[in-house]
Amino acid sequence: MTTVGILGGGQLARMMALSGAPLGLRFKVMDTAPDACAGQFAPMVVGDYRDEAALAEFAGSVDVATFDFENVPSESAAWLAERIPVFPNPRALGVAQDRLAEKTLFRELGIPVPPFAAVDTREGLDGAVAEVGLPCILKTRRLGYDGKGQFRIRTADDIDAAWAALGPQADSVGLIVEGFVAFQRELSVVAVRGRDGEFRTWPLTENWHVDGVLSASLAPAAVDDVLLATATGHAQALADALDYVGVFALELFCRDGELLANEMAPRVHNSGHWTLEGSETSQFQNHLRAVLGLPLGDTRMVGQACMLNWIGAMPDAATVLAEAGGHWHDYGKSAREGRKVGHATLRAESRAELAHALERVGQGLGREAQVAPVVERLRG
Amino acid sequence: MTTVGILGGGQLARMMALSGAPLGLRFKVMDTAPDACAGQFAPMVVGDYRDEAALAEFAGSVDVATFDFENVPSESAAWLAERIPVFPNPRALGVAQDRLAEKTLFRELGIPVPPFAAVDTREGLDGAVAEVGLPCILKTRRLGYDGKGQFRIRTADDIDAAWAALGPQADSVGLIVEGFVAFQRELSVVAVRGRDGEFRTWPLTENWHVDGVLSASLAPAAVDDVLLATATGHAQALADALDYVGVFALELFCRDGELLANEMAPRVHNSGHWTLEGSETSQFQNHLRAVLGLPLGDTRMVGQACMLNWIGAMPDAATVLAEAGGHWHDYGKSAREGRKVGHATLRAESRAELAHALERVGQGLGREAQVAPVVERLRG
Repeated sequence: MTTVGILGGGQLARMMALSGAPLGLRFKVMDTAPDACAGQFAPMVVGDYRDEAALAEFAGSVDVATFDFENVPSESAAWLAERIPVFPNPRALGVAQDRLAEKTLFRELGIPVPPFAAVDTREGLDGAVAEVGLPCILKTRRLGYDGKGQFRIRTADDIDAAWAALGPQADSVGLIVEGFVAFQRELSVVAVRGRDGEFRTWPLTENWHVDGVLSASLAPAAVDDVLLATATGHAQALADALDYVGVFALELFCRDGELLANEMAPRVHNSGHWTLEGSETSQFQNHLRAVLGLPLGDTRMVGQACMLNWIGAMPDAATVLAEAGGHWHDYGKSAREGRKVGHATLRAESRAELAHALERVGQGLGREAQVAPVVERLRG
Repeated sequence: MTTVGILGGGQLARMMALSGAPLGLRFKVMDTAPDACAGQFAPMVVGDYRDEAALAEFAGSVDVATFDFENVPSESAAWLAERIPVFPNPRALGVAQDRLAEKTLFRELGIPVPPFAAVDTREGLDGAVAEVGLPCILKTRRLGYDGKGQFRIRTADDIDAAWAALGPQADSVGLIVEGFVAFQRELSVVAVRGRDGEFRTWPLTENWHVDGVLSASLAPAAVDDVLLATATGHAQALADALDYVGVFALELFCRDGELLANEMAPRVHNSGHWTLEGSETSQFQNHLRAVLGLPLGDTRMVGQACMLNWIGAMPDAATVLAEAGGHWHDYGKSAREGRKVGHATLRAESRAELAHALERVGQGLGREAQVAPVVERLRG
């Protein structure tokens, strides 16, 4: 019996455990919070990721380790990797944790990126803004997610405020200025790479964010073959360069038919949740297959799929459950402002059917604004 | 947060918990064995079903109870039902536990059944065999499953041996003689009925047994509309008569185009395991939706599906995992002669593709005999 350890016990770990159980796996989850939602279905080690005793307990009870949370300290990942197999490898994790390292690698690999520049001081910020151009965004290099740790600089007048907001973090997590991209669409490649280097992607996904947090994903994204091949090529180049094992997502901006890499997430990803019902093999099971060196599962779609994120609190389930292709995912978390507490996936045989289902759900839940851009794309 | 209690902690409880987690449910499983495989993913109460203290602990920690195991003593089910909601209701459980009560109900409802007669004594056995005709089968009325508690009577010379084998159980579990049906096909209706009486069936399934244990299931079974409507009508009549809530299976023999009811299973059923990948909503999730009074999910198929049971020990997973439509289910049990330890489901878009996949899996695992009748049916 193989036990898979997961660092981080949120909804990603929870869905990994639920999806990996049929492979005969057991799970052990490590999290700082004793009520982490994955703990409802897997035994936990509660402790700080820097606590060597807790890490040792975790390492001693699992056969292999992986991540639900990309901001596990890279030293902790490295400490574990000296004792047990860890996938993805700590270097890949480290690169993905650092916007500067990540964007530098993208550029080295020939993956187009928006202009960027590192920032260490207040004076450096002026230089970086001059180099990158306006408008731009000041971001923390590390520990940012879901739009947190970002400040938009529209004009030179915003620079002082940006520094006041994030400057104090320059020494601890580092800062970077990135050019603002006036994109038309946000896309993501969700991909998996096996221990033997086999590489597969799910169909390209289009994403909509609200206040920096994913709101809806649609798959397959309507893109031409050239764009699809380009996006897939970028993801494969990245995975090969990092000797990446497992699932990851590469987020891309699409501007006037050109793709610009935004960031990679070194783990299963919110924009791949639709794969649970919308593809032959989910991102969660394929991540585990990759980590364990098992054959990768087919990533073909089964119909059309749209995922809607539930932020803050769960809506009433009945509207979605009453839909023929409606699938509900309540992460078992308590409600909290801004927190991802669940999602729904609507599956349909055609884009027209999917649009109808989205409209019914939008109306039933009073969430017309959330479904509107997806419906517009499906009918466009 | 709703906690669902499940009496019995085998693979059915395990798959219920895994399939119900996305509804935001928690689970508590009661089983006599501390290593019951559902316990790997849900907290347990370990105790005998007749142990009132254990039952009270279980009842006190759940909001509603259901079954993974149909042979929970009906008095225990009744005891629970006085304290918490229990679905299916104890009367339905009681009828399904007793072949005589079950077949009597089938007959009352106009559902054709093979001839049968109750047996209490050795002399009664002679009379029952004379009434039913040869060949026939002596069975225990209660506590039989997977072909256990059965003795085939081919000629009058077998009657003494049959009595020697099962006669000692006449007082404890009762006996019944059933006419032997020379059927061409075994079919099952897997159905779900909601608290409000809403009734749905999955597409009809054809089943193959080996030594009394399910070996393979194919869905949809190739049947004409009349036969399908008849089978569905039988299942609905039965569910309505019992005010049944949840999933059940009705096993039918098909002989010369005529359907004869064999038995009902008052729970999710092995012949419905293919619904996990082969239909929009699995039997496991729909059982929970029914039990909780939630809208029932769509039971339409997604492609064609064949389930292969793994008995005794798990084969090597790689052959199935390498199939595009291959899905693996290892129940996390130790190997043991005759034990159901897992299954695989192959899903395909067409019957021809499914036949090819089955042949490859049969060859890869050296299980040509297991897949042969299914392949023959798909090509027939």
